[in-house]
Amino acid sequence: MARTLTLSFSCPDTSGIVAEVSAFVAGHKGWITEASQHTEHELSRFFMRVEIRAEYLDFPVGEFARRFAPLAKKFAMDWKVSDSAQPRRVVLLCSKQEHCLYDLLARHVAQDFPFVVPCVISNHEDHRKIVEAHGIPFHFVPVTPETKHAAFRKMEQVFRDAQADLIVLARYMQVLDEPMCRDFAGKIINIHHSFLPSFAGAKPYHQAHRRGVKLIGATCHFVTPDLDEGPIVEQDVIRIDHSDTPEDMAHLGKDIEKVVLARGLRAVVEDRVLLAGNKTVIFR
Amino acid sequence: MARTLTLSFSCPDTSGIVAEVSAFVAGHKGWITEASQHTEHELSRFFMRVEIRAEYLDFPVGEFARRFAPLAKKFAMDWKVSDSAQPRRVVLLCSKQEHCLYDLLARHVAQDFPFVVPCVISNHEDHRKIVEAHGIPFHFVPVTPETKHAAFRKMEQVFRDAQADLIVLARYMQVLDEPMCRDFAGKIINIHHSFLPSFAGAKPYHQAHRRGVKLIGATCHFVTPDLDEGPIVEQDVIRIDHSDTPEDMAHLGKDIEKVVLARGLRAVVEDRVLLAGNKTVIFR
Amino acid sequence: MARTLTLSFSCPDTSGIVAEVSAFVAGHKGWITEASQHTEHELSRFFMRVEIRAEYLDFPVGEFARRFAPLAKKFAMDWKVSDSAQPRRVVLLCSKQEHCLYDLLARHVAQDFPFVVPCVISNHEDHRKIVEAHGIPFHFVPVTPETKHAAFRKMEQVFRDAQADLIVLARYMQVLDEPMCRDFAGKIINIHHSFLPSFAGAKPYHQAHRRGVKLIGATCHFVTPDLDEGPIVEQDVIRIDHSDTPEDMAHLGKDIEKVVLARGLRAVVEDRVLLAGNKTVIFR
Amino acid sequence: MARTLTLSFSCPDTSGIVAEVSAFVAGHKGWITEASQHTEHELSRFFMRVEIRAEYLDFPVGEFARRFAPLAKKFAMDWKVSDSAQPRRVVLLCSKQEHCLYDLLARHVAQDFPFVVPCVISNHEDHRKIVEAHGIPFHFVPVTPETKHAAFRKMEQVFRDAQADLIVLARYMQVLDEPMCRDFAGKIINIHHSFLPSFAGAKPYHQAHRRGVKLIGATCHFVTPDLDEGPIVEQDVIRIDHSDTPEDMAHLGKDIEKVVLARGLRAVVEDRVLLAGNKTVIFR
Repeated sequence: MARTLTLSFSCPDTSGIVAEVSAFVAGHKGWITEASQHTEHELSRFFMRVEIRAEYLDFPVGEFARRFAPLAKKFAMDWKVSDSAQPRRVVLLCSKQEHCLYDLLARHVAQDFPFVVPCVISNHEDHRKIVEAHGIPFHFVPVTPETKHAAFRKMEQVFRDAQADLIVLARYMQVLDEPMCRDFAGKIINIHHSFLPSFAGAKPYHQAHRRGVKLIGATCHFVTPDLDEGPIVEQDVIRIDHSDTPEDMAHLGKDIEKVVLARGLRAVVEDRVLLAGNKTVIFR
Repeated sequence: MARTLTLSFSCPDTSGIVAEVSAFVAGHKGWITEASQHTEHELSRFFMRVEIRAEYLDFPVGEFARRFAPLAKKFAMDWKVSDSAQPRRVVLLCSKQEHCLYDLLARHVAQDFPFVVPCVISNHEDHRKIVEAHGIPFHFVPVTPETKHAAFRKMEQVFRDAQADLIVLARYMQVLDEPMCRDFAGKIINIHHSFLPSFAGAKPYHQAHRRGVKLIGATCHFVTPDLDEGPIVEQDVIRIDHSDTPEDMAHLGKDIEKVVLARGLRAVVEDRVLLAGNKTVIFR
Repeated sequence: MARTLTLSFSCPDTSGIVAEVSAFVAGHKGWITEASQHTEHELSRFFMRVEIRAEYLDFPVGEFARRFAPLAKKFAMDWKVSDSAQPRRVVLLCSKQEHCLYDLLARHVAQDFPFVVPCVISNHEDHRKIVEAHGIPFHFVPVTPETKHAAFRKMEQVFRDAQADLIVLARYMQVLDEPMCRDFAGKIINIHHSFLPSFAGAKPYHQAHRRGVKLIGATCHFVTPDLDEGPIVEQDVIRIDHSDTPEDMAHLGKDIEKVVLARGLRAVVEDRVLLAGNKTVIFR
Repeated sequence: MARTLTLSFSCPDTSGIVAEVSAFVAGHKGWITEASQHTEHELSRFFMRVEIRAEYLDFPVGEFARRFAPLAKKFAMDWKVSDSAQPRRVVLLCSKQEHCLYDLLARHVAQDFPFVVPCVISNHEDHRKIVEAHGIPFHFVPVTPETKHAAFRKMEQVFRDAQADLIVLARYMQVLDEPMCRDFAGKIINIHHSFLPSFAGAKPYHQAHRRGVKLIGATCHFVTPDLDEGPIVEQDVIRIDHSDTPEDMAHLGKDIEKVVLARGLRAVVEDRVLLAGNKTVIFR
C-alpha cells in the first residue's frame, strides 16, 4: 500500500474551492487518487475529501498541515488531514454478546481496513480469554446503577491512556452518561439493533415483533446525549416473516448488526464521514 | 394452468387439525400441491393454507365449501375457499402518479398472477387514455374537502357495481373516510412510501431526508381507520445517500413502491395473507 | 431544474488534470456542482465527469466545446459535453413482453430523468395502442429469418430519421446483426435476463432452474457483436427457491429486468457511464 | 427450548402421503409445530419436513424411528429423523483466512442454532490460539503436493474419531481428493467466493474484476468430486463498482462469504436441506 494523505473538510459554499485545492496539490507535485465533493444546499456548505499519494509531494509529508493552513483559513474550512502511516486507534466496548466483537477482531487480524485496537473494555468478564489470545489488553469495568458515573470516568481515563481516536460500542449494553457523550462528541459510534428512527430505545426486536414488520434493521450512528438520535452513518435490513419470534430476530439480526457496524467504522476510519448538522455526508 | 382450490383458515390451536384436514382432502381423492401452516403462540391460534388440484376431487368443485363446512365448524375456523377459475376482481384507485398504475396494468396484461381489473377510479383525468387503451372503464371521481364524503359514497357504489373483491390504492392521494375503511375492512390495500412505522403521515420522503437515513422504504398495508397503522403485508427498502434530495427520493422510491405493492397484491390475491390481530401471517 | 453542462472524458493518466480542468471552469466563473474521477491503473487511464451550472459561465453555453477543445487536446482526451437543455433521444425496441416498455413509458411520462422517446419499434403489433396513446409513433418492423437483414437496415433508417442518441432493447427478442452492432457501437443497450456471465444465450431461466441457483439476475449491457459479452452497465438479483419453475422465474424476474434496464439507461443518459475497454466506469 | 423431533423425507409422489404422515403423528398425540412440503415434478418426487414437539408423543422419543419405519417403507421414503437433544457434530476446516472461522465460533458460543464443534482442522497453525481459547481441540494437518493423499486419510480419521455429522470448509484452501468426496458425500459443505456457476475454479475475484461485473457473490454448496459443481445450498451477492480491485473484492466479499456459509450450515443442521438430484430443496 502506497502512503497517502487524506484531506477532508467542509466550508461555506462558494466558487473556486475545488480549483484552489487542486491547484495547491498539483503545485506541489501531489497526485490526487480519489476526490469527492458535495454541497449541502440547505446549509450552503461545501464538503470535500481528497486522497493524495504522499511520495510525490515536493515537501515532507509532515508539513502538509502547516502549508495547507492558509488556504483552509481563506475558505473558513473545518478540516483535517490524516496520514495512512498512522492508523486510527479504536477502543472497543462490549458486553456479553460476541458477534460484533468477534467480527471486528477478525477484521483487525486481517487488516481489512487500517486500524489498531489498543484495548477492549467490557462490563463483563466473558470475552477476556479471546481478547487476550489476540494480544490485546482487556479491561473489566463493571457498571452498576450506583457506580455508573465513576465507572464511566474510569473508562474515559482508559480512552485517554490508550490515545484513542475512536470508541466503538460493539453491542455495549450500558447507556453512556452525558459527560462522556459531550467530552467525546464525534468520537463514539454505536450499533443500534433497529432501522432508526423506528424502534429507538429498549428491546427493538420486541417492538418490531409487535408491529409485524417484514424487515428488521440495524443502524450505526454517532452517540450524542439524545439516545439513538445521533447522526446516522450506516443502515441495513434483512427479511423476516411471521414465524420469527423476537428471539429469532435477535439471532438473525446479528448478521446485519455486525456488518453495519463494521461498514460504519470503516467509513469513519477512512475519513469518509463528515458531519452536516445532525446528518452525515459519506463519501464512498 | 391446472384448476386449483385454495383453502385458507385460522382457528384456535389444538392437535389433529392438519391430520383431519389432510384426511378430508385425501378421502376425496384430492391432491394437495402446496401446504403451509403456522401457530401464533400469543394468540393460541393456528393458521393454514392448502392448495388442492381440483380435477382429482371425487365431487364437483362447487360443493367443496358445503362439504368442508362441518370440519370448519368443528374447529371453529375462520375460513375461505377460492377457485382459480374465478380470479379476483381488483379495482384500482390512482391520482396523478403513474408508476404503480402502469406496473399493475403491465402485470394484468401479462397475467403474472390471476386478477381482473373491472375498472380504474381516479380523482384526476390524467390516465384516462392509457386505462381505456386497455379496454378498462375509467371513472373520474373528483374529491374536494366539501365533496369528499359524497365522493367516497359514489366510489363505494362503483366498488359494489364492479363486484370488487379488492381495492388497491395505487398511490391514491386522498385519505379514505371512516365509513369506507369500516365497510371494506380487509379489502383495501395501500402503498405507503416509507418503511413503516417510520415516517407515517404526510411527506415521508421529506421526513426521511430530515433524519438523514441511509435507506428509504415502502410498505404495503391494509387500510384501517387509523392512518398508516393497518396490518403490514409487505415492505422493502433501497439505498440512498447524502446527495439525494426529497425529490430524488421520490423518483428512486418509485422502484420499490410499485414492486412492494405488486408483491402485496399478489399475496392477497393468492390467499397467502391471513390476519392475526393487527399483524399478518403470509404463506410463501 | 437549473441548466447544466456535463463534461465527461478519459485520457492517459498524469498529474495536474483535475487542477487544470477545475481552473478552466473556475476561470470562467463556472460552478462545479458534482465531480467524480477514477484512475484505471491497468490501462494507465484517467476518467472524470463534471457537472457545471450553466448560468454562471462568462461565455455562451454553446461555446463550451470550442473553448475547452485546447485543454482536451493537451491531455489527449476522449471527451464529450452535454447540455441538460437537450435531452437524449432514446428509441425503444420491444417484442411481446410489456414490462420493460411500460416501465420506461411511465418514467418518460414522469420525466424521472430527462429523455425523449422519438418512436418505438417492434416486431409485433401488440403494443401499438398503448404506445400511440402516449402520442409516440409506433413502427412495426417484422423480422423473419429471410427478411432479417433488410429489416435491420430499415430500423437503422428509423434510428437515423429519429436522430436517436441511444437505442434500448426493452426485451427485444431478435439478435441484432453485426452491421447494426458495429454502426451503432456504444449506442445500444440491452437487458439480459440473467446475472451475466452466468447463463448467457437462450433461455437463461431454464438454465438457472437446471443448475438450482438460489438467486436469479438481470444484466444491462452494451450490445456488441459478441452476444451477451458487451460491457456491463448494471446488474441486480432477486431470491428464488426450489419451488419456482422457469415460468415463475420469468414472472419474478421482470421486477429486476425493468429496474436494472431503467437504472442502466439513466446512467447512460446522464453521462455517468464511460467505457474502459470491455468494462465500464460508472460515476454515481 | 422444547425438545423436538424433525422428520424429513423424499419419496415417489402419490396422493395421501401428507394425510398418512399427519395421521401417524396425530394418532400418537404428536404436535406438529412446523410442516413443509414440495413436489419436484420433473422427478415425480415428493419432499417433506415436519417438526414434532417430542413431549406429547405417547411413546418414548427413541422409538420414533422404529415405529415410523413401516410407513416409510410403504411410501419407499428416503428418510431421517433427528432429535433436538442431540445437536449435530460439525468439524471445521480452515486455512489462513479467519472470517468464516471467527464467525462460526461466535455462533457456536451464542448457540444461534444448535451445533457442537468437536474439533478444528487446519493446514496452517495461525488460528490455534483462538480455537484453543474456546476449549476446542485444534489439529494441524499440513498438506503438500506429495503428502496430500496421506493428509486427507489422516483427516478422515479425525472426522471418524470426532463422530462428525458434518464437515465445513470454512475457506479451506485445499481441493479435497476423490476418496474423501465420495466417502463423505452429502456431509461436506464448502463456501465458494463467487456466485456460481460464474467464476468457478481459482481466483474468482480476479475473474469477476476482469469481466467487470457490478455484484460479487458467494455460494455455499455440497462438495462433490466435480469441483464447484455440487448442489447449491445458499447464495448471496453484494454491490461493488469500477473502483474495486480484486483485493478490495476479497475484503468486501468476506461479509457475504461468512453469512452465506452460516446460513447454509444452519439449514443443513436443522434438516431443512433435502437433495433432489444435483439440486436442493430447502424448507424455510
